[in-house]
Amino acid sequence: MSKGFLLIVSGPSGCGKGTVCQELFKKNEELLFSVSATTRKPREGEIDGVNYFFVDEEKFTNMVNDNEFLEYAKVHYNYYGTPKKFVLEKIEKGEVVVLEIDVQGALQVKEAYPEAVSIFLVPPSMNELKNRIIKRGTETEKDINIRLENAFWELKFIDKYDYIVMNDEVIKAVEKIESIITAEKLKVKRHKNIMEKIIS
Amino acid sequence: MSKGFLLIVSGPSGCGKGTVCQELFKKNEELLFSVSATTRKPREGEIDGVNYFFVDEEKFTNMVNDNEFLEYAKVHYNYYGTPKKFVLEKIEKGEVVVLEIDVQGALQVKEAYPEAVSIFLVPPSMNELKNRIIKRGTETEKDINIRLENAFWELKFIDKYDYIVMNDEVIKAVEKIESIITAEKLKVKRHKNIMEKIIS
Repeated sequence: MSKGFLLIVSGPSGCGKGTVCQELFKKNEELLFSVSATTRKPREGEIDGVNYFFVDEEKFTNMVNDNEFLEYAKVHYNYYGTPKKFVLEKIEKGEVVVLEIDVQGALQVKEAYPEAVSIFLVPPSMNELKNRIIKRGTETEKDINIRLENAFWELKFIDKYDYIVMNDEVIKAVEKIESIITAEKLKVKRHKNIMEKIIS
Repeated sequence: MSKGFLLIVSGPSGCGKGTVCQELFKKNEELLFSVSATTRKPREGEIDGVNYFFVDEEKFTNMVNDNEFLEYAKVHYNYYGTPKKFVLEKIEKGEVVVLEIDVQGALQVKEAYPEAVSIFLVPPSMNELKNRIIKRGTETEKDINIRLENAFWELKFIDKYDYIVMNDEVIKAVEKIESIITAEKLKVKRHKNIMEKIIS
């Protein structure tokens, strides 16, 4: 049996990583979603245990102290973290675990777990990025500006990633990610005992 | 513009790399075929300049002396070599150049040009491999045995390759190679000046 891997789908706010991951999971039911813990309030339609584990700051702090996170960070006044145990157990069983995460978190995961496969999802242009952030309609003007500045800054870390996917069309971006998953599964390093299988 | 790459499709005799590459090119006309030079006699249907450059030993020796090969080797009484200039020029222009080659040649190319992306094509089993070599019908019994022994030996080098593709069905093997090509094109390292494009 071959080993699975952790697939990081990341990119600046407004790059569309949420929509892309939703579509990716709709088409590929065998993929596992790494559910993050967060202290931020649920947005409309978000379900606890599905989109996030919504926890309060006390609980989050305990998890940090118990070293239960692959990464954690404070982003825009809220804490986010990726529970470690879930991810590593599934990978060992051959599963592909997808982690949708902001750039800071992705860099931390890559540092703590370099075997992770990372995709940087980019918007077609900075104008498009601004439009998307504004359209979301959940942010104040100040928040929009913070997000745009962050996005500019985060683009500088693209070289730390393995793959780049332009999100000009969701369907095409998803197809590209599917190809990356297929290719990564075929990496020789994930197939131990392959010789034995062929010879027997 | 992003840089292209050299894709090595390799594997032991009888793994079906010829058939797989034929199908790959039929479906993906934008791919370039690295045409090898060889001193072996053309098989039925093979065309000079398309399947191989068929040259005599004197010409081949001159090319070796002029350092015109990315790799060359003697295999089963004949010489094979990959002309260097063609490959490197095309890659610089962003093209994907596919090199169908035996295991010894692939290892030499990887040594001389580590950026090459390499695929090891394996037959589903050693029995199947034997059947395929016999079916080809162009070999004597002695040749078949030499090829089988070589195949066993060559399987040991699988760890030197990037990807492994099982050739149980040609169509499926081709689809896997297509995914590898798509994914490799998306590697961050092939996209320079990507920041500038997004910001502008």
